[in-house]
Amino acid sequence: MGQYSDLDIQGRILLGPGPSIVPPRVLHALSHPLVGHLDPQFLELMNEVQELLRYVYQTDNPLTIPVSGTGSAGMEAALCNLIEEGDSVLVCVNGYFSTRMYQIAERYTKGVRRLDRTWGTVFTPEDLDRALTKHPAKIVALVHVETSTGTRQPMEGISEVVHRHGALLILDCVASLGGEPVCVDEWDVDLAHGATQKCLSCPPGLAPLTVGPRAMDAIRNRKTPVANWYLDLSGIEHYWGKERTYHHTAPISLNYALREALRLIYIEGLDACFARHRANAEMLWQGLEDMGLQLVVPEEIRPTTLTTVWIPEGVEDLAIRKALQERYNVTIAGGLGDFKGRVWRIGLMGNSSRPQNVLLLLGALQRLIAKARTG
Amino acid sequence: MGQYSDLDIQGRILLGPGPSIVPPRVLHALSHPLVGHLDPQFLELMNEVQELLRYVYQTDNPLTIPVSGTGSAGMEAALCNLIEEGDSVLVCVNGYFSTRMYQIAERYTKGVRRLDRTWGTVFTPEDLDRALTKHPAKIVALVHVETSTGTRQPMEGISEVVHRHGALLILDCVASLGGEPVCVDEWDVDLAHGATQKCLSCPPGLAPLTVGPRAMDAIRNRKTPVANWYLDLSGIEHYWGKERTYHHTAPISLNYALREALRLIYIEGLDACFARHRANAEMLWQGLEDMGLQLVVPEEIRPTTLTTVWIPEGVEDLAIRKALQERYNVTIAGGLGDFKGRVWRIGLMGNSSRPQNVLLLLGALQRLIAKARTG
Repeated sequence: MGQYSDLDIQGRILLGPGPSIVPPRVLHALSHPLVGHLDPQFLELMNEVQELLRYVYQTDNPLTIPVSGTGSAGMEAALCNLIEEGDSVLVCVNGYFSTRMYQIAERYTKGVRRLDRTWGTVFTPEDLDRALTKHPAKIVALVHVETSTGTRQPMEGISEVVHRHGALLILDCVASLGGEPVCVDEWDVDLAHGATQKCLSCPPGLAPLTVGPRAMDAIRNRKTPVANWYLDLSGIEHYWGKERTYHHTAPISLNYALREALRLIYIEGLDACFARHRANAEMLWQGLEDMGLQLVVPEEIRPTTLTTVWIPEGVEDLAIRKALQERYNVTIAGGLGDFKGRVWRIGLMGNSSRPQNVLLLLGALQRLIAKARTG
Repeated sequence: MGQYSDLDIQGRILLGPGPSIVPPRVLHALSHPLVGHLDPQFLELMNEVQELLRYVYQTDNPLTIPVSGTGSAGMEAALCNLIEEGDSVLVCVNGYFSTRMYQIAERYTKGVRRLDRTWGTVFTPEDLDRALTKHPAKIVALVHVETSTGTRQPMEGISEVVHRHGALLILDCVASLGGEPVCVDEWDVDLAHGATQKCLSCPPGLAPLTVGPRAMDAIRNRKTPVANWYLDLSGIEHYWGKERTYHHTAPISLNYALREALRLIYIEGLDACFARHRANAEMLWQGLEDMGLQLVVPEEIRPTTLTTVWIPEGVEDLAIRKALQERYNVTIAGGLGDFKGRVWRIGLMGNSSRPQNVLLLLGALQRLIAKARTG
């Protein structure tokens, strides 16, 4: 067993699909002393976190809370609270995380179907209409921004078709919340979930989730308990609600940080925040294309928060990413699943979305690719 | 919607059942900048966290990791990874958290039985022998230190009888790990789980868990997948193991803090740490008895980490606790369930276990009780 030195972490310029760079004020919030999870100071903070989450989700849903786990816990909470064994679920699969939704849903019911589209493409309302006409479903699960492919699902007409077929719509907003508009009420999404370490620029460990009226009804009218205790919203709801009934001990420090991260977005203003994401993304896209690189996804379905680019001929994925990190302290990510070794994933999420980061990355990539090609 | 002021948290002298007072060095670790969850710096830290967790659990179990959720998530992970639908489970119920184990187990199989003992008492090996003779079980779940009652379950002979009946032993170490000896290998416990915010004095949000060889075999030989995706150890194992296969994004900052919290225990040494807990607990017990208060649990099964005391005649639970917090900045807890309004729960856990805290609490309680009685 070794001796353990003082913690010595060199922060990175995080331009991958999350975590993003956490602002100093959020790191400072994290380091505040602890209070009990039923302390009046913490109860007040829980109220503020809920208000601010409603702001970024653009919703009035009363049940809008951070689930005490990472983004995947939020995804599972979304699915397991709506699904009862025997329910039919349609999962729209066009990437790694929509595949994960399918895999999680399968743990809760045998009635899961997948509607597959090529990685890098999205779904039309007509796709959903045809699928639901053929096989009605109680729940439709869809990813807003696919972190594995860098697509943004257009939401026009989606909830209308889902609801016309009597189904509920779950939307994964992990890679969009706080960076791309997520209009839960306007889009009439029944249950949306996200994560803190992407466009909210807060450390990972919480999963913001919001439940609309139809989904609330479905939860209240369940015939069986949720097949999972920790993520059962009927218990969590009363902990975050007026009753404050003890369910579990919330991650107190992470909630300090989440309040501060949300407050920074509130101070900047959502519209200004989205405009900043767009301006920096456009600068990145132009720069990559000027270098002769090809973007994976056409602009009309490309999110501002995450860009995928084909790895050019003659350069090696891992060698470039390693050099980026070791020489320039910049972290980007490789591909997952079908895209492994074929694409790079560049995130300009939350506090990482800064023009200086775009310039640095472009300059570094250009030098490293040129060097790799000349050997 | 309000305007949001700068975060302003007044830390408390936390002498309840958790969270405990987090040392400044751990708060400082929390505030280090983020790196990616597959960054070499974080991979090295994951190895150190696992080594240090083996140290506090006194085990060589390879699979010894922090689950990415709070203590209740760890409890659910312990149960759901071993239970398959149809399995018989015996839960030893003598408090609020053992009741929770029963409730969680019930979500995973119909075959759950409870062996009840009065709150404030513990189980003998003979109790288990009789129960298992009558109704054999695949799994026995037991709480080491019951946070609701302040009992410490003696472990002599327990695993021997469980294993003689061919069952696996799950032990909840949430309120003991890091404060009372937890000897996973010596006691031959098959799966133990804990939490970070009690005797490890780290913020809440992670649940240290260790899996012994029999439980590993049971997990590998499951006929059905775990009925839960997020807590499925077969996925988590490969993320924390050599493969580093992506499962979810670990709560990076909390793992920084956990490493530092464990390192402080390692530097102090487990034996010195346990001796400190004992000395301060004995000082508390003597002081409470000198004030004429009655402890709930006899000394031979009373843990050093958490003390329950009957609320004396003529004083009001909530009024005293409120005054303790508002006048002296000290947090203790009331009772749960059967003990609500009848007991106070005083924790001397981890970094909170200091003689100055004992003196302060005794002095404050004495004044407040005297004042309540004289009106």
